[in-house]
Amino acid sequence: MGEFGLIGLISKLISTPSKDKLILGIGDDACAWKNDAGVELATIDTLVENVHFTLDTITYQELGWKSLAVNVSDIAAMGGMPLYALVSLGLPGETNVEDISKLYQGMLDLANQYNITIAGGNVVKTPQLTITVSVTGKPLNSAILKRSAAQLGDQVAVTGNLGTSAAGLRMLIDKLKFDEQTTSLLRKAHQQPQPRIAEGQTIVQSGAKAAIDLSDGLINDLGHICKMSEVGVKINVGKVPIHPIVRDKFKESATELALAGGEDYELLFTAKAETMHKVKKSLKIPITVIGDIISKHAGKVILLDAKGTMINLKQEGWDHFSK
Amino acid sequence: MGEFGLIGLISKLISTPSKDKLILGIGDDACAWKNDAGVELATIDTLVENVHFTLDTITYQELGWKSLAVNVSDIAAMGGMPLYALVSLGLPGETNVEDISKLYQGMLDLANQYNITIAGGNVVKTPQLTITVSVTGKPLNSAILKRSAAQLGDQVAVTGNLGTSAAGLRMLIDKLKFDEQTTSLLRKAHQQPQPRIAEGQTIVQSGAKAAIDLSDGLINDLGHICKMSEVGVKINVGKVPIHPIVRDKFKESATELALAGGEDYELLFTAKAETMHKVKKSLKIPITVIGDIISKHAGKVILLDAKGTMINLKQEGWDHFSK
Repeated sequence: MGEFGLIGLISKLISTPSKDKLILGIGDDACAWKNDAGVELATIDTLVENVHFTLDTITYQELGWKSLAVNVSDIAAMGGMPLYALVSLGLPGETNVEDISKLYQGMLDLANQYNITIAGGNVVKTPQLTITVSVTGKPLNSAILKRSAAQLGDQVAVTGNLGTSAAGLRMLIDKLKFDEQTTSLLRKAHQQPQPRIAEGQTIVQSGAKAAIDLSDGLINDLGHICKMSEVGVKINVGKVPIHPIVRDKFKESATELALAGGEDYELLFTAKAETMHKVKKSLKIPITVIGDIISKHAGKVILLDAKGTMINLKQEGWDHFSK
Repeated sequence: MGEFGLIGLISKLISTPSKDKLILGIGDDACAWKNDAGVELATIDTLVENVHFTLDTITYQELGWKSLAVNVSDIAAMGGMPLYALVSLGLPGETNVEDISKLYQGMLDLANQYNITIAGGNVVKTPQLTITVSVTGKPLNSAILKRSAAQLGDQVAVTGNLGTSAAGLRMLIDKLKFDEQTTSLLRKAHQQPQPRIAEGQTIVQSGAKAAIDLSDGLINDLGHICKMSEVGVKINVGKVPIHPIVRDKFKESATELALAGGEDYELLFTAKAETMHKVKKSLKIPITVIGDIISKHAGKVILLDAKGTMINLKQEGWDHFSK
């Protein structure tokens, strides 16, 4: 039934009537509840060896960074501030202590950069390296960005460039040789993504309501927004921002990498034109409007080429259970 | 270096100077930090197929219960109230939807009983079933029970009976046949332990300071208390409470099951005699004083038989990495 089908099933299973303080449950980037102090955000994610990464292509330090980054990115997608992390580390018996130290060093590099405290955790034995991280955080004020809040008339925009991470994955798997600058750009995009915390906060403070982080690929993630918001979206594929180096090195595949590749951990958000203007003025990184929320085709992502013709794309991104 | 050595290493690695709001980091049952509303508790734990359980002996529903229970028990050991749970579920490709529903039903059975909300989570593909649960909670007032707070002159006590869970494990593995009442008692103790939430709250409210939940086996868990509190402990082995059925069915092994078996998820706590008296008066379940905190032998657990002679026990409990 696929990962997204499973999440839907679980969402139905756990919906109980006693959820009076729960603001957002399963189905958004993070869940949110009210505590005595205000709203709290929390998220959890697991990276599994040979499913999400292979030790042939990632260092322990990069892996530590990435395992925390993917969770911090979920907090970014809510416009929140990450605060504490818990780590449950599953180690094969033969893992050596130096590698564990490097893994934690990678996590700490990111934690220190974002002022996150790694508060606790545990260690278990597993056949393959498995890292589960849970991150809690809070909204800056009380507003949070939701997948379900996109509205007719909103523009759809993304931070940064898309496809760089997928290009990095392709480089690593196919052992492609590039110049030093390209290699470093692509590797970093895939193995040490930079969660858009400051950007998420600016986006929510500018008045935007809907966002998601780009982990499953642009088309899949747009699909999540469309389903949760019960709207359609029309994307001008030619507007999707791609790093010139990715365009240069990957030619025709660059667009596919950007649309379906996943793991960029950029933010996709929707907002009215005037809010979009505010966001652009407040942020230094590129903010690119790539399409519009439409009333027709609820739940659907419509891709248009430069001439306004609809495009079909075969590969629709990253769903662990359907591959 | 063993599970406990690894936890010590990680504890050193993540100790950063920016921990001003962190009250308890790695090394206790749960971690604790200050938020705007007061103190928050959080814990995370992972159960892995063929490491912590086998589907030959546990049902999906029991597994759901247990995976949440072991985390709720950590909150109990702090004297806290569990509030929200996040679940990261690692599923082999072939897992069927009915089994996933049963797993969540087991979690919900426990969650509803303790008024916990399963707020969110995610699903990933794993070679073997892997369930990570993170639970947050809060202290009733501001006091929390710590592993590091045992003091000279404290009595050492446990809730309920010990060894029943280990007896259940032995029954399941060795396919022992017992009468229905015995089978049900032992199976439930091992597969559906009842976290001692109300008891933990009573213990902290009565004025006790130190506790741990019995997951690694009495001797190991006493060792944690002794190391963290820098005290010794003297245990009168004859006083360790064992269910009459376990004593009857397991004869001489019963004591070993109780001392080293683990996974009872009862609470071990220490308190002055007058506090102990209060706790006993307030609780309906048996509270048994089994020993005393002593000044000599810091970090050591001394076992004495009825005549006061020191005993050595070969097997020292449950450490996944040293087995």
